[in-house]
Amino acid sequence: MTKNIAVIMTDLVEDIEYTSPKETMEQEGHKVDLISPEGKTVEGKKGGQFESDHAIGDVSASDYDALLIPGGFSPDSLRGDKEDRFGKFAAHFLENDKPVFAICHGPQLLVDTNLLKDRHVTSVKNVKNDLINAGANWDDKALEVCGNLVTSRTPADLDEFNGEIKRQLAQ
Amino acid sequence: MTKNIAVIMTDLVEDIEYTSPKETMEQEGHKVDLISPEGKTVEGKKGGQFESDHAIGDVSASDYDALLIPGGFSPDSLRGDKEDRFGKFAAHFLENDKPVFAICHGPQLLVDTNLLKDRHVTSVKNVKNDLINAGANWDDKALEVCGNLVTSRTPADLDEFNGEIKRQLAQ
Repeated sequence: MTKNIAVIMTDLVEDIEYTSPKETMEQEGHKVDLISPEGKTVEGKKGGQFESDHAIGDVSASDYDALLIPGGFSPDSLRGDKEDRFGKFAAHFLENDKPVFAICHGPQLLVDTNLLKDRHVTSVKNVKNDLINAGANWDDKALEVCGNLVTSRTPADLDEFNGEIKRQLAQ
Repeated sequence: MTKNIAVIMTDLVEDIEYTSPKETMEQEGHKVDLISPEGKTVEGKKGGQFESDHAIGDVSASDYDALLIPGGFSPDSLRGDKEDRFGKFAAHFLENDKPVFAICHGPQLLVDTNLLKDRHVTSVKNVKNDLINAGANWDDKALEVCGNLVTSRTPADLDEFNGEIKRQLAQ
């Protein structure tokens, strides 16, 4: 069954943390929408140019079945949104037990949901203390699966991350 | 009296958050040392090329009278240090009541000191929740002075930030 996946990201995203999971999702027959602050072309850290499907102001989280948050410096920038629209968007998925896939700096954005207490996560080391201070249990692992909250550390973990994406979306 | 000021930063620092306070400090007769992970040239977000004076492995925090942490994406990268050397370096200043000046994303690095509980700080909005979760009281102000912990939000606050740097270093 085709699922609608929302990806939230902006400039300086870690390119492969978007393109690789997106490829996995599309190979499985799912639909992937890139949602950015203004709906413009997103420029990756490595030079990728990614066309947005929507601006955050034009979509509703309830229209999506799962969420992907790639890393790089993109999650930090999304957290600067004056109306906290990205934190609120992500909260919908955690609140409704929909799959959330976050890699590298991606989990950093989940701090703004205030819904990490007692959840098991991993991430790039840089934001480890922020996740712990948000109440999460943090471990240094290639893949952490906590119900349908799925996190990984870096691009080196993409095989495990993509494998779990397949499993979660097949359910 | 000349004071020795340590600046900790790396690539993608917000250039003016280094160059402007440094100019203020030097005009007042103080000595400013740029300390980076490897002691190499630091490349600013805006294209600045800044020669390091030391690598973090070659200095001791106890040799310095005050600390400056400029923002940009530099503080996040410093937090990725495998031995947490920058968090430990910053902790020395908070533990010994030496002035700490942190602007924009700079305060983000102070989370890794575990010494923010009940301190009053400001920062760029992006890392607000991380500072609150670290136990700090966060306010949206151009300048927050909490004893000798001095924080500001963005380059637009540099006049207030530099003014307080002058006052603190004159003491």
